[in-house]
Amino acid sequence: MGTVPLLSDEEAPPEARAVFDDIRAVRGTDHVNNFWRALAHDPALLKATWERVKIVMAPGALDPKVKELLYVAVSVANGCEYCVHSHTAAAKAKGMTPEQHGELLAVIGMAMQTNGLATALQVEVDEVFRA
Amino acid sequence: MGTVPLLSDEEAPPEARAVFDDIRAVRGTDHVNNFWRALAHDPALLKATWERVKIVMAPGALDPKVKELLYVAVSVANGCEYCVHSHTAAAKAKGMTPEQHGELLAVIGMAMQTNGLATALQVEVDEVFRA
Amino acid sequence: MGTVPLLSDEEAPPEARAVFDDIRAVRGTDHVNNFWRALAHDPALLKATWERVKIVMAPGALDPKVKELLYVAVSVANGCEYCVHSHTAAAKAKGMTPEQHGELLAVIGMAMQTNGLATALQVEVDEVFRA
Amino acid sequence: MGTVPLLSDEEAPPEARAVFDDIRAVRGTDHVNNFWRALAHDPALLKATWERVKIVMAPGALDPKVKELLYVAVSVANGCEYCVHSHTAAAKAKGMTPEQHGELLAVIGMAMQTNGLATALQVEVDEVFRA
Amino acid sequence: MGTVPLLSDEEAPPEARAVFDDIRAVRGTDHVNNFWRALAHDPALLKATWERVKIVMAPGALDPKVKELLYVAVSVANGCEYCVHSHTAAAKAKGMTPEQHGELLAVIGMAMQTNGLATALQVEVDEVFRA
Amino acid sequence: MGTVPLLSDEEAPPEARAVFDDIRAVRGTDHVNNFWRALAHDPALLKATWERVKIVMAPGALDPKVKELLYVAVSVANGCEYCVHSHTAAAKAKGMTPEQHGELLAVIGMAMQTNGLATALQVEVDEVFRA
Repeated sequence: MGTVPLLSDEEAPPEARAVFDDIRAVRGTDHVNNFWRALAHDPALLKATWERVKIVMAPGALDPKVKELLYVAVSVANGCEYCVHSHTAAAKAKGMTPEQHGELLAVIGMAMQTNGLATALQVEVDEVFRA
Repeated sequence: MGTVPLLSDEEAPPEARAVFDDIRAVRGTDHVNNFWRALAHDPALLKATWERVKIVMAPGALDPKVKELLYVAVSVANGCEYCVHSHTAAAKAKGMTPEQHGELLAVIGMAMQTNGLATALQVEVDEVFRA
Repeated sequence: MGTVPLLSDEEAPPEARAVFDDIRAVRGTDHVNNFWRALAHDPALLKATWERVKIVMAPGALDPKVKELLYVAVSVANGCEYCVHSHTAAAKAKGMTPEQHGELLAVIGMAMQTNGLATALQVEVDEVFRA
Repeated sequence: MGTVPLLSDEEAPPEARAVFDDIRAVRGTDHVNNFWRALAHDPALLKATWERVKIVMAPGALDPKVKELLYVAVSVANGCEYCVHSHTAAAKAKGMTPEQHGELLAVIGMAMQTNGLATALQVEVDEVFRA
Repeated sequence: MGTVPLLSDEEAPPEARAVFDDIRAVRGTDHVNNFWRALAHDPALLKATWERVKIVMAPGALDPKVKELLYVAVSVANGCEYCVHSHTAAAKAKGMTPEQHGELLAVIGMAMQTNGLATALQVEVDEVFRA
Repeated sequence: MGTVPLLSDEEAPPEARAVFDDIRAVRGTDHVNNFWRALAHDPALLKATWERVKIVMAPGALDPKVKELLYVAVSVANGCEYCVHSHTAAAKAKGMTPEQHGELLAVIGMAMQTNGLATALQVEVDEVFRA
């Protein structure tokens, strides 16, 4: 169990329950995942987080699948187990193919590797890269 | 200056110079950036890294611009100053628009935020997310 | 199980057992938590760590509850599951209310988010911020 | 220079300029720091970030100075140079004394250290710590 | 279960099975560990990773045990649970004594601590340290 | 400049000055590096850190050069610019050859890469790896 218990629909305060309902409506699913049930102890934080997720992850100049891939990449680098699972699942749900998953892993691995090398070498930034 | 001096074409050993030439040919530019010039102290590591980068970042199931966005995302989460600069520049060179840059930032920020929340709450992974 | 077995009071060497006893005395509890039982394989490291913890976490210019909140914040950013659990529990034991827990989460999330944005933008430090 | 140029008041789009004005009004200062000037390339992201910062960092169950200390702690663990500078300055502005700064450093150092030890040992979470 | 199922010898594609066989031959063991079985979904990534591991971890200017200690150190700092377990086991298999394990932990803890202090203080690099 | 000014011998309080003298004596050099001069604002923290560094980095079951390599590895993974510089310099001073530096980089890069892959795949720990 986490640092707080997960709240069921019955246990969640009304403002949290309203967010659960919106999650269900927007995602077209009955499943409200554990992240939101843990966050429901602070309904204002739950609501602010969900409202922002809806905006940020919506289709825009980048498509939603690419956004999920980016989310996985950040979550891996930060070592967030829950987030790696939930956003890998979301990326699959939005059409990530096994080939794309393999390339995502390869890019993450490459970036991690050269991040380490560049940091170990303390490479000076090329003038041409600066805005 | 970094933890090793940058090697000019003249200072680099022949095997490293050959990699520099390949970088120029593949990228269609005269500029060999500082990362490779620092890595040239170990020509075998330089060559292995470059050969792998060529494969991983080539067009595939994901397009090269998306791969650069992913590279930026990982580099930000790892706090690699050099890599953030070089791959943001590469993403722009491959067509990242200001709107896409803004959305990239928003997704990175969102992911960082919920990584923190999920880790603080130690949320249990939903059964439905597991492969 | 971890990378080493946990040592019971009976299994721990005498110097480690003495530290266990001091932990019990200082904390007014019978429970010696797993961190110390794992560390007991190296009694000198156990003792050095515990002696330092006692000093650092004691009341001072910052109160012990605030110190636990800071400990949680660092542990979340570092993704240390054990530490998030143990220091969240310690913060609660020292009086952290659910409202304070919610605000702690909100600040951690905000900081993670703007850490990502500032790193992605490679923002130059304002002159006024430098000491 | 960063990955984007900093926008002066004259260069910033009107929606960004309005945020700058609100920052000045809320903080009672003429200085709009570089973070916001970099973020101004995406006025919607600028506004969303600032509006959230105002809420999260306001006095509540935790006082604003403690929130700045937490912000510094997270920023250090994430290695965000800009954020360490800006929030250390903010903590000082909100009354952090040299003694408190020293204790903040000591707690961060202690947490980093035991985060490393607990992760290296892969210590199992004690049942009593789980919610 | 992870984000992909582990592939048994029977389920793995032929190119992946060939890598499994090479792992067995090189390591002189029948056990192909889970990391490779998860990676086998992308045989090209599996092969590239394994071929590189063989070269990097082979005896050279640094001995293989020291390389495993370094691997553990990086894995701890990155919070990779799997990697901490697998490389601590590998270090033991290559002769790491309990005393060396204790010193490894002490150095990791010390480095984590002073990493935090140096980052919090934003210490300027001494001229004498630059190459 | 950092978040605090560096203290010269004249500016440092007597307890800090005594630590500076011990650093000079132990290291056989006149140079007291910036880390200690920044930390000198809190003489107790300075002294506790230095006393612990002396013990942890002394010859033991691991030799001092290997300990410096480990220090570099952790510092790279944590992205600590100052620490990467100071401990790379220390490793060179203790005899790290260019070949060893190259292998150190290669191991760090490899570990970063597989840390990313293992975390992305959320690989289950093999039973044989557990203590």
